[in-house]
Amino acid sequence: MATLYHHPLCPHSRFVRLILAEHAIETTLIEERAAERRREFLALDPAGRTPVLVDDDGTVVSGAMVIAEYLEETADPELNRLRLLPQTPRERAETRRLTEWFNLKFYEEVTNWLVTEKVYKRFLAPEIGGGAPDMDLLRVARANIRPHMRYIGYLTGARNWLAGETLSLADFAAAAHLSCADYLGDVPWDEYETVKHWYQRIKSRPAFRPLLSDRAVGTTPAACYADLDF
Amino acid sequence: MATLYHHPLCPHSRFVRLILAEHAIETTLIEERAAERRREFLALDPAGRTPVLVDDDGTVVSGAMVIAEYLEETADPELNRLRLLPQTPRERAETRRLTEWFNLKFYEEVTNWLVTEKVYKRFLAPEIGGGAPDMDLLRVARANIRPHMRYIGYLTGARNWLAGETLSLADFAAAAHLSCADYLGDVPWDEYETVKHWYQRIKSRPAFRPLLSDRAVGTTPAACYADLDF
Repeated sequence: MATLYHHPLCPHSRFVRLILAEHAIETTLIEERAAERRREFLALDPAGRTPVLVDDDGTVVSGAMVIAEYLEETADPELNRLRLLPQTPRERAETRRLTEWFNLKFYEEVTNWLVTEKVYKRFLAPEIGGGAPDMDLLRVARANIRPHMRYIGYLTGARNWLAGETLSLADFAAAAHLSCADYLGDVPWDEYETVKHWYQRIKSRPAFRPLLSDRAVGTTPAACYADLDF
Repeated sequence: MATLYHHPLCPHSRFVRLILAEHAIETTLIEERAAERRREFLALDPAGRTPVLVDDDGTVVSGAMVIAEYLEETADPELNRLRLLPQTPRERAETRRLTEWFNLKFYEEVTNWLVTEKVYKRFLAPEIGGGAPDMDLLRVARANIRPHMRYIGYLTGARNWLAGETLSLADFAAAAHLSCADYLGDVPWDEYETVKHWYQRIKSRPAFRPLLSDRAVGTTPAACYADLDF
């Protein structure tokens, strides 16, 4: 069985867990606090970032998008399973652009601040950055999420799913990041009805269930986090 | 003919220019100062980052790795050209991991500081971040480049090229970022002989020539920048 080194509130790990679940690939989960820079973890991935997948043949694949591409390439074609990258190069480029949008831009502007300040810092020693959350950074993240909500609303208003007519990696990237912000109570759902409807559709998928029952040590999820009718 | 929106000292643009040149795809280059957030450029790519490729059928592809994947997928298979992503999923994962290493990690730790402080800030209005370079940030970037040089040295000591036995996207990503640092005189070549030998091999390729004759307005390249025997 494959192994995934992850953190429950690492949005990139959640992105990969959603893809694995959609493909019905069972995985052993190992929780990793990347900031502690554990020697054995750095030996697997010198960049020292979650997620890292160790496939059952020992292949080490690290980085959210690298793992996503690897899973697309290695999934058994006989299974005629869901494809999360569409067929044409143009559609694939749009899917990758939006996947990167969430995994890089949304992360830099929103989830990195929320998760680092509210979760990671609580468990780090002060000499490696631990401490109380910086409220100014949280305010910036909560302001930054709004243009992203508008953009998701614009896309899902014009298309069936984020990158086009079919469900794709882009939807899972967006949902993974939003689910972290949602766990922490930082998504202004009521102001963005179209986004809420799109998120309800993806949140109802069986692949989402394990994320909804996740509990990060010492952090209680927001009241409606696991509610499908929030 | 395809069009590439780029900046001469944007390392991600250089990465794409190298790939286009290796594939002998002629492109019209349009210089873009992304920080100015020109309306027509944002309409092409809402993330507002170089590079953006507009293919000759009008397909807009934005982001360095997204363009690289698109070029791999669309290049004419009849031409039996150089493949910059290897054949097996395991090798492809290693190539993508290292490409991302340079395009994200090296960029965050080295090239972003060097190019922003030494080049971009000179041409920006003060109200959008223009001004004199911050010498502390430059010192940090010059310290940060050293572990990367050791890592490139380790990889090229153990393998023929960065990601394995064949030339790949990873080599062009590393070379693109190093070429920006080299233009600005910030690569300590003399301390890393193995890296220098690898860089000499890639710098000698015809695809590299246009980069070596590049001149960014107001910034003169370091003395040995265009010298193949530096």
